[in-house]
Amino acid sequence: MSYSVAVVGLGAMGMGAALSCINAGLETYGIDLNPVLLDKLKQAGAKQAAANADTFADKLDAVLLLVVNARQVKSVLFGENGLAAKLKAGTAVMVSSTISAQDAKEISQKLTALKLIMLDAPVSGGAAKAAQGEMTVMASGSAEAFDKLQPVLNAVAGKLYNIGEEIGLGATVKIIHQLLAGVHIAAGAEAMALAARAGIPLDLMYDVVTHAAGNSWMFENRMKHVVDGDYTPLSMVDIFVKDLGLVTDTAKSLHFPLPLAGTAFNMFTSASNAGYGKEDDSAVIKIFNGITLPKKEEA
Amino acid sequence: MSYSVAVVGLGAMGMGAALSCINAGLETYGIDLNPVLLDKLKQAGAKQAAANADTFADKLDAVLLLVVNARQVKSVLFGENGLAAKLKAGTAVMVSSTISAQDAKEISQKLTALKLIMLDAPVSGGAAKAAQGEMTVMASGSAEAFDKLQPVLNAVAGKLYNIGEEIGLGATVKIIHQLLAGVHIAAGAEAMALAARAGIPLDLMYDVVTHAAGNSWMFENRMKHVVDGDYTPLSMVDIFVKDLGLVTDTAKSLHFPLPLAGTAFNMFTSASNAGYGKEDDSAVIKIFNGITLPKKEEA
Repeated sequence: MSYSVAVVGLGAMGMGAALSCINAGLETYGIDLNPVLLDKLKQAGAKQAAANADTFADKLDAVLLLVVNARQVKSVLFGENGLAAKLKAGTAVMVSSTISAQDAKEISQKLTALKLIMLDAPVSGGAAKAAQGEMTVMASGSAEAFDKLQPVLNAVAGKLYNIGEEIGLGATVKIIHQLLAGVHIAAGAEAMALAARAGIPLDLMYDVVTHAAGNSWMFENRMKHVVDGDYTPLSMVDIFVKDLGLVTDTAKSLHFPLPLAGTAFNMFTSASNAGYGKEDDSAVIKIFNGITLPKKEEA
Repeated sequence: MSYSVAVVGLGAMGMGAALSCINAGLETYGIDLNPVLLDKLKQAGAKQAAANADTFADKLDAVLLLVVNARQVKSVLFGENGLAAKLKAGTAVMVSSTISAQDAKEISQKLTALKLIMLDAPVSGGAAKAAQGEMTVMASGSAEAFDKLQPVLNAVAGKLYNIGEEIGLGATVKIIHQLLAGVHIAAGAEAMALAARAGIPLDLMYDVVTHAAGNSWMFENRMKHVVDGDYTPLSMVDIFVKDLGLVTDTAKSLHFPLPLAGTAFNMFTSASNAGYGKEDDSAVIKIFNGITLPKKEEA
């Protein structure tokens, strides 16, 4: 029994997921606008890779969406020459972009009207975990959706959380996770900026924190970039403008105050407006004036 | 060559440090107002333990202060029947309470006037690390201070950071560490409160975060108390009102903005004013209204 899956969006996460599907023996298709990425996936053993799914949409058992945001998800599925209308009834659609619960519900309604089955399934773990087929997947949806996507989940997930049946719960868990990730990066930047102001060597401050109870996953990962003065983007400031914007939208729709996340959202937005939007997200530290930060050593 | 040290303040950290000194073979004295703690230290092998050092102050090579705050440090050393005036010239005084850089400098000036030697040496790691002689010590002071306190540092420190010669640098590093610790607890509370509002089971949210990039040392340690509904104080809300107050003072003296730490300070202060000051610091989550939190299971 062959099983066919198309991965839409071959960026860092999507490419890793697609390669994991190939490694797991699934018939894997790739969709992206970038021909370089399509070639890469073809050479890695994809059945087909193209700018759209016109020639294979009706062969698919599943679609995995890893595009950047809700606008792109909607455009791919329901826009001009949209994919959803071409899929056969009963095809499972795993939406793994970070989007709002509201958008997840809207998308689900439209898919249901087309007799398609949605899993609301954001992911975490970064490009390395994606390439290993070890992403953390936080999913909500019907038992049928989990069931139909089992081969894909087996291929891409190191850890799978079943949050519940209601579409939107997966999106919400991811957004709450991003609240913590964003606040931790901004807090790390604030602490390192204060250390710079106080004349504490930043490499020493980094060493103390990473050996003590003030540590976080994001501090350890991102403040190393500040110590090295290297703001080459792995994940950009603008991604957290987007994700903390989703956090803010979620808080508003739930009528709930978020004092820290709101503050961190302002910090990332300030950094973006100051021209650092495309730098590594640790560049949020550059909103602090009156300090001297380490510079990258010349090779 | 025997080496005599007195530990002042036999709370969770001080008792652990005193026991570590005994285990390391130092002649150990204890000072506290609580007779139960004095008895405990005597039975563990202390040379003497008393409410003051009148009978042994002139025998000491070193004093280790682990009282609650700067006011207590000053009172012990320079208050009525103060310890500093009774120490022999050249005695080393290790000040390990969390205090401001300004207070550290004031204390150092007074000790220097009495020909005593100060190490500005805050600690981290909690009661368990203190009991094992494995505290993280972030110290600044003269080479002579480090030298004279070497036996004590060997006994109590798992990791020793030499921040520099200037008194106040140790205090500042500790305060910046507390900025992160406090913001991380408050951010964990904010995220878990939002999860409760959104109908996400908190044990599941905890499981997701602790297996993903949104994790922090404090989230993993403190949000377990929220999941269990157990606010038995290990470290209290009021400790972070104090410590984030020191962070705020430090920012003011350095003319530096701290958007996140200022917000977290307000959150802990609100929690204290709402009556939760003596509960575990994770009780800062109780400032959020309109949610239902897990209750402790009855035994």
